Amino acid sequence: MTVPAALVLITAKDARSAARHNLHTTSTSGLAPGHLQANLIILPSRYAADFRILCARNPVPCPLIAESTAVGRYDSVKSWIRGLQGNDILADGCDIRTDSPRYMVYKDSRLEKASCSDITAEWTEDHVAFLIGCSYSFEAELTAAGLPPRHAVLHRNVAMYRTKVPLCPAGVFQGGTYVVSMRPYRKQDINLVRNITRKYGSTHGEPICWGWEALEDLGIRDIDDPEWGDAPLTIDGRRLGELRDDDAEEVPVFWGCGVTPQEAVMRAGLTGTVMAHAPGHMLVLDAIDKDIMEV
Amino acid sequence: MTVPAALVLITAKDARSAARHNLHTTSTSGLAPGHLQANLIILPSRYAADFRILCARNPVPCPLIAESTAVGRYDSVKSWIRGLQGNDILADGCDIRTDSPRYMVYKDSRLEKASCSDITAEWTEDHVAFLIGCSYSFEAELTAAGLPPRHAVLHRNVAMYRTKVPLCPAGVFQGGTYVVSMRPYRKQDINLVRNITRKYGSTHGEPICWGWEALEDLGIRDIDDPEWGDAPLTIDGRRLGELRDDDAEEVPVFWGCGVTPQEAVMRAGLTGTVMAHAPGHMLVLDAIDKDIMEV
Repeated sequence: MTVPAALVLITAKDARSAARHNLHTTSTSGLAPGHLQANLIILPSRYAADFRILCARNPVPCPLIAESTAVGRYDSVKSWIRGLQGNDILADGCDIRTDSPRYMVYKDSRLEKASCSDITAEWTEDHVAFLIGCSYSFEAELTAAGLPPRHAVLHRNVAMYRTKVPLCPAGVFQGGTYVVSMRPYRKQDINLVRNITRKYGSTHGEPICWGWEALEDLGIRDIDDPEWGDAPLTIDGRRLGELRDDDAEEVPVFWGCGVTPQEAVMRAGLTGTVMAHAPGHMLVLDAIDKDIMEV
Repeated sequence: MTVPAALVLITAKDARSAARHNLHTTSTSGLAPGHLQANLIILPSRYAADFRILCARNPVPCPLIAESTAVGRYDSVKSWIRGLQGNDILADGCDIRTDSPRYMVYKDSRLEKASCSDITAEWTEDHVAFLIGCSYSFEAELTAAGLPPRHAVLHRNVAMYRTKVPLCPAGVFQGGTYVVSMRPYRKQDINLVRNITRKYGSTHGEPICWGWEALEDLGIRDIDDPEWGDAPLTIDGRRLGELRDDDAEEVPVFWGCGVTPQEAVMRAGLTGTVMAHAPGHMLVLDAIDKDIMEV
């Protein structure tokens, strides 16, 4: 197996610096192994209270791990990020407006910029930033257990799908549904996969469902056509959907996904400027995954 | 409106004492106004860790407000109940084994006793008790706002329904779905009802859905045939379902229900003895509802 250039980014600071200077502009899967990666949602402050409740009511797809103070000047990250049991989750010198590889910008609920490299011009003193846990956190332990996620092995982005599973609404946030990420596993490995990922309660935890029959429950029409990320493949490069009717033991396994709050925000018809990371392109934190594992 | 005898039970201690001595054996709705009421689940200790995660992943239907220590002799309630921000939630002299009006007992996942008056014989040192928030908590404030729940006005039990909305699984707890409670409200009052109940995040919070179209989303076939509690009625005593096709403004409004964890436990195929309150027949706590409201 060749080691891709991206894996040279082994510290969180490396990863953020590369993103800031547009040297790394793709998925952050596998970067800075062991470091917490975060989904990012930035909202006008008037929506912050409802969003906080949305996360509290839907912790599996929307695990809120930190947020900025309600209204703050953008002086330093360290002064305005709180949460995560009182630890700083970002070191000095991080700029949340530049340090994700790619961002999305929405105005009045319409996409204005897809996949832009920074949001410095859009950030205002009225914005509140929320960091949401990411399932990349448990991938290192899955790999260490001999169960590496397929997309990491193939250097692809994880496949993400819209579902029909409803979120519990919160104030302005109504009508949202779960977004899920998918990793294929052999049926006999699912219990071990569940046991490993269960501990990562702040980063989506164990799968929400698995098996081909789960597609109907989730409302996913075509496993080979995810809404975000790359289409999933078998280890020998075939379409995953081809396995469905043969006797292969590999089945799709679905986790809650941090794109969920971004979708929920889009459905809420908010006014003003909303910003987010581009799916798969996370903010890499100095905190390590173990900091937020359940003991 | 006549005042039923039950409403004389105005303190939590009154309510528990009446339950203990089998003087009050029906729904606790409206008893000890302002006091927290709790759903009760008592499990063999080997299932406690998974159950705790089930609640953490599904806080809307399963809001865990307190639990007993892992393994404890049954000396006094005060010494073994913890949680709820460090406050005692039960006064001295409460016995969780006798102080709910009615209990259910399951052995090896099969119902052994429905609606029995105490569980003293079944309790062992290996059991762990969980207290789950109850939507009765927000009914006093709804009533104060001129929006009394229909079932309280008519002195009936709240209607509760199975749904097809999946719970996020946790360890042995798989295949569970939401149970919901229902209160009918006029369409123009729903925003106010949402705003009032949103604050009660530890006791199910705001509704999860509303309107006649919600029945299909939830998988409820007949609003007049709830799985638990009493069939809902219009204020003039008609079946609620009769309204569906006329131009009345009243629609069903659904909240997460604390019967959910009891259902999830039953579907998990546990071995050993599991105990719970009978639906609607809560444990009345000395803590007041405001103790667990979000500020």
